[in-house]
Amino acid sequence: MNIVLLDPRQTESPIWMISAKRQLEHLRTHVNVQVGDSLKVGIRGGKRYLTEVLSVTEQQIQLQPIHEETVPKKLPVTLIVAMPRPKVLRRLVMDSVTLGVEKIILLHSYRVDKSYWQTPFLQQLNQYIDLGLEQAGDTIAPKIEVYKRFKPFVEDILPTLIRADCPAYVAHPYVEMKMPAGIQQGCTVVIGPEGGFIPYEIDLLIKNGCQAVSLGNRIIRTETVIPYVLGRLFSH
Amino acid sequence: MNIVLLDPRQTESPIWMISAKRQLEHLRTHVNVQVGDSLKVGIRGGKRYLTEVLSVTEQQIQLQPIHEETVPKKLPVTLIVAMPRPKVLRRLVMDSVTLGVEKIILLHSYRVDKSYWQTPFLQQLNQYIDLGLEQAGDTIAPKIEVYKRFKPFVEDILPTLIRADCPAYVAHPYVEMKMPAGIQQGCTVVIGPEGGFIPYEIDLLIKNGCQAVSLGNRIIRTETVIPYVLGRLFSH
Repeated sequence: MNIVLLDPRQTESPIWMISAKRQLEHLRTHVNVQVGDSLKVGIRGGKRYLTEVLSVTEQQIQLQPIHEETVPKKLPVTLIVAMPRPKVLRRLVMDSVTLGVEKIILLHSYRVDKSYWQTPFLQQLNQYIDLGLEQAGDTIAPKIEVYKRFKPFVEDILPTLIRADCPAYVAHPYVEMKMPAGIQQGCTVVIGPEGGFIPYEIDLLIKNGCQAVSLGNRIIRTETVIPYVLGRLFSH
Repeated sequence: MNIVLLDPRQTESPIWMISAKRQLEHLRTHVNVQVGDSLKVGIRGGKRYLTEVLSVTEQQIQLQPIHEETVPKKLPVTLIVAMPRPKVLRRLVMDSVTLGVEKIILLHSYRVDKSYWQTPFLQQLNQYIDLGLEQAGDTIAPKIEVYKRFKPFVEDILPTLIRADCPAYVAHPYVEMKMPAGIQQGCTVVIGPEGGFIPYEIDLLIKNGCQAVSLGNRIIRTETVIPYVLGRLFSH
């Protein structure tokens, strides 16, 4: 937690209030916060401030804003990911938020186990978004969308995301063209499930505007490949 | 598991043998391996082959090599990481191995909890190396070294790793110079602990040849920053 994320309604009066149990516990246990300390605070969906701690009790911490700070920029990227195992989903959402992904799309695919869609994590994504934002020092949640049918998404939605200045890449091991690096524009990145997309799916993605690109001959897990690809794409 | 890693002694006769419980279980449960299937096999520290499955029993799977395959290249990088929490250590080793890091150095630092050095994971690193190699399709384990004293390491060992064609970079949020991208040479990357290196440590690293470079104003967790940095550095 590198900032404390507050709801706008907690920052309406001149004195702000931290009252969420998770945040209070973290600030007591890990930060050992004291009156007079300065604390970085973000307003969900809004600005970020350096604040001063006015009081600390069991139930709440009172703060006063000192000055505004810069909210880190997002990466101009839409990440389309074949729905992973629940544990991976949690990490993937937190990491993507931390790295500044603008939009995350969770998609069904042939090699996605149908049970993955039953995970309670899917109802708790906001928690993991908060953790990711508080890690990064960001305040703006990415959009998250869910599509449980592959073909209608790829045929009807995907093409609306692709423009000349915003191409889409699907990571695929068996092609010559390398994943681009240091791009100066936005893009969409499609990441397959464990075991990869099936040939029908790759063909459909390509037919609907995706470029199949290779990341070399190492096979990298979903949760690891996302920061790896983002580091590569946005290295300018 | 994208290849099965065998010891050289398991591949001495013309018929090879898989007998490790973990591998047998994976091949039965996840791959449902059958006689006649082809299976990718790596020899620890050696070559990689496509093989054919000759027999499958509870206790062993017999194989016959068909032809040699290419072992993926390593990234010419030494990763020096402040010793993380045990759970993170496990992930970090697996991911670094999967991504092809040549050498990993685990280092003490002021903000590393001394209890981290007691973790049993430190005695089980070979297991996580194996999992990383089997994920990536690699056969060559990276070197792993452990230094429990920061100052002697930075003053005596670190300078021997730095050359004109192999610079060292330490990720540090408060500097102007950006982490390089798309480099054509080897390098050493130093990653601090949760909460970062203390100013004394950063100064000592710089005094001994490290360049302090920034990754932007998002604060990224150790296990996420490693693939992100490697994707950026080796994007050429």
